Amino acid sequence: MAQKPSIPKGTRDFSPEEMAKRNYIFNTIKDVFLLYGFRQIETPAMELLSTLMGKYGDEGDKLLFKILNSGDYLKDVPDCNLDERDALHTIPYICEKGLRYDLTVPFARFVVQHRNEIQFPFKRYQIQPVWRADRPQKGRYREFYQCDADIVGSNSLVNEIELLTMIDEVFSRFGVNITIKVNNRKILSGIAEIIGAADKIIDITVAIDKIDKIGIENVNEELRTKGISDEAISMLQPLLQLNGSNNDKLATLKSMLASSEIGMKGIEEMSFIFDTISKLQINANVEIDVSLARGLNYYTGTILEVKARDVEIGSISGGGRYDNLTGVFGMEGVSGVGISFGADRIYDVLNTLNLYPAETSTSTKVIFLNFGSSECERCLQYVTALRKAGISAEIYPEPVKMKKQMAYADALHIPYVALVGESEIANHCISLKDMSAGEQATLSIEQLIEKLKN
Amino acid sequence: MAQKPSIPKGTRDFSPEEMAKRNYIFNTIKDVFLLYGFRQIETPAMELLSTLMGKYGDEGDKLLFKILNSGDYLKDVPDCNLDERDALHTIPYICEKGLRYDLTVPFARFVVQHRNEIQFPFKRYQIQPVWRADRPQKGRYREFYQCDADIVGSNSLVNEIELLTMIDEVFSRFGVNITIKVNNRKILSGIAEIIGAADKIIDITVAIDKIDKIGIENVNEELRTKGISDEAISMLQPLLQLNGSNNDKLATLKSMLASSEIGMKGIEEMSFIFDTISKLQINANVEIDVSLARGLNYYTGTILEVKARDVEIGSISGGGRYDNLTGVFGMEGVSGVGISFGADRIYDVLNTLNLYPAETSTSTKVIFLNFGSSECERCLQYVTALRKAGISAEIYPEPVKMKKQMAYADALHIPYVALVGESEIANHCISLKDMSAGEQATLSIEQLIEKLKN
Repeated sequence: MAQKPSIPKGTRDFSPEEMAKRNYIFNTIKDVFLLYGFRQIETPAMELLSTLMGKYGDEGDKLLFKILNSGDYLKDVPDCNLDERDALHTIPYICEKGLRYDLTVPFARFVVQHRNEIQFPFKRYQIQPVWRADRPQKGRYREFYQCDADIVGSNSLVNEIELLTMIDEVFSRFGVNITIKVNNRKILSGIAEIIGAADKIIDITVAIDKIDKIGIENVNEELRTKGISDEAISMLQPLLQLNGSNNDKLATLKSMLASSEIGMKGIEEMSFIFDTISKLQINANVEIDVSLARGLNYYTGTILEVKARDVEIGSISGGGRYDNLTGVFGMEGVSGVGISFGADRIYDVLNTLNLYPAETSTSTKVIFLNFGSSECERCLQYVTALRKAGISAEIYPEPVKMKKQMAYADALHIPYVALVGESEIANHCISLKDMSAGEQATLSIEQLIEKLKN
Repeated sequence: MAQKPSIPKGTRDFSPEEMAKRNYIFNTIKDVFLLYGFRQIETPAMELLSTLMGKYGDEGDKLLFKILNSGDYLKDVPDCNLDERDALHTIPYICEKGLRYDLTVPFARFVVQHRNEIQFPFKRYQIQPVWRADRPQKGRYREFYQCDADIVGSNSLVNEIELLTMIDEVFSRFGVNITIKVNNRKILSGIAEIIGAADKIIDITVAIDKIDKIGIENVNEELRTKGISDEAISMLQPLLQLNGSNNDKLATLKSMLASSEIGMKGIEEMSFIFDTISKLQINANVEIDVSLARGLNYYTGTILEVKARDVEIGSISGGGRYDNLTGVFGMEGVSGVGISFGADRIYDVLNTLNLYPAETSTSTKVIFLNFGSSECERCLQYVTALRKAGISAEIYPEPVKMKKQMAYADALHIPYVALVGESEIANHCISLKDMSAGEQATLSIEQLIEKLKN
């Protein structure tokens, strides 16, 4: 087996350097989740296929990784399935489990299964990997982490405010300038209602979204080819020219949707959110974007999406309100609102903008070089004392050439190297080399602890 | 789909309360790993079956969860396999991936695959779930976390010392009294050598291990039934009566193994470890146990295992030295030594001994009750101020009956409840209820922040 081993396509190993950056991202998000009172859960990597199938559409079902049953998995497959090599219809006989595809369906399953133990409103967060048998491509992986926070069991718009300010806090901590785009499914429904084309909502939002690229005339042409009437298109024109401040946009929408009850309800919700947000100091740009749809069938109220202002990349966070998360598992009337942070894209954004704190890349503060057994014995006592003081310290395990030991310290970006040779042992002291400044000092262990504590 | 959803047998959901305890365990272990200069990696949940198969014995191969290939997975299966419903031999045609079974084989694969990027000696830690299609039973799960730390690319016994003190530090932080049992494969080889029964090493250690339960005579009888000669059994007697201090045991072993080169090498290693450890202050009992074998075929030097002294439970940590971790992937001569912490058993031990810190169970420090929209608006400003000061705070999202809101605060063990009604708005103050003391106070937001910061 001399061939170099590898890993399944679309999956990744993470080196210590990458893990340090990823931990910085996850810990920052987690700290903010906790600050807002969200509580962590974890669910199994494997769910029953009965839980997963049919929740992501036909395409999603295909993208589920299925787990082969243990033992004699072929025993219940009908003869005709094998004769015809009917792969698709054989799956239910040979697989009963699959890997989770997202965190939302397992969360819905969790809520229903544990409904009697859960205190509602339930503010949960979950940070775990998900798996999709998608074709791997740049920035798209078959295993990736999702970071979700949801509040279920409450209709209050206070939850939307909390999520918006939470997004703002997360990206403020990262130092990333963002725009949060906000829409409301009820406004989209209102638009469809007043132009009499409720079934064309997706075509309309797709077309509106292109206005900056292709201009109003081409958008109108596209709408026509989608079978939307000239009258409806003419009624849509204010929407295509929607600009100015959020208040301007709300005013335009208000006059346009005056006759639609659901549309006006959406405007009311949006107005409340913008009013309230304006009284809290947040760093993000928050702007109305009526072309924002994000899984339209899923969301029933607020829809939101986050873009980095200084990097060209897809959305780095998004979410919205849904009114029937758990209905598919037989528990009706549970409304919720949630957001998801895209850790992989945030990773790329922080790399591009060079926003990782300097201390992210290193863990060990000081390494003791190894000059032989008696020196090493003294060094073990020193590293013990340093660690007791909370300072990460290590000792090079082998008494090899100093050059090799220094190269190790250098490669790992360890900021201080401690040398304890014969004379240091005799004098009960430590020679400390500051690797960035190049300076050397002689210290007692107490002085060393004091120095490295800062 | 009115049937209550469930999860695959042998898997678990973790509630917020359980997650808080699990995070306490993982974070404690992680903090100590970092203090010792270990660096984190992560590997994919899925590995190629070519990486996993044949590494855990025939039984292990069966216990691997295999992932069904995507698309037309049946197309390459030979007719005869399907005709005969030969499940076992069909696997290689329909599955190319499996879920990782432990962290050791993926780590070995990682080291070989990234050998040119890794700085040796490589001190890595890894905390990730593993999956085994074992029959589920009490305390045995199909998905569970492993927490491993290994040092590869160094033969030095300093690494053993580091791991022993690291184990001591972890359990000292948990407040768990432990015994670390230490053995050395070379001593076992020496024993086998001097009694001329190298192939009987497993039988011998299994028998020795029973001495406290069944007594010397029965152990000897068992050895006889295993085909060990009377002469060999008589030579083994000093081993069966091994007691006293570690030094006494080492002296007995030394005289017994004087003629075995490998045995004496093992004694030398063990002596070095006990000598060095005795000069460092550690809390754990460390004792020689020649019956300790733990995956004998795997370890080549030191073997160690950790038992909780105050709880009847299997080993809660263990590990040892191996000389050829990566040989199976074509990279020879990489020696390593590692340990693994059993998070699930540690969880049970801390539960039994009630050793979780009080603050483990709660996250939010203060909740603001919701009395309606204008009160809520003020409260949003207060929670913002608290969070800016690093204090976790939330606001009940709905203006429902106070009793219901209080019940929520109570159920979540939130220590402080803040009330902002009409008079508090007018006076720019907050009424704060201390839920454990039952006391109430009126404070400004600045005073509230000051109070809750402590």
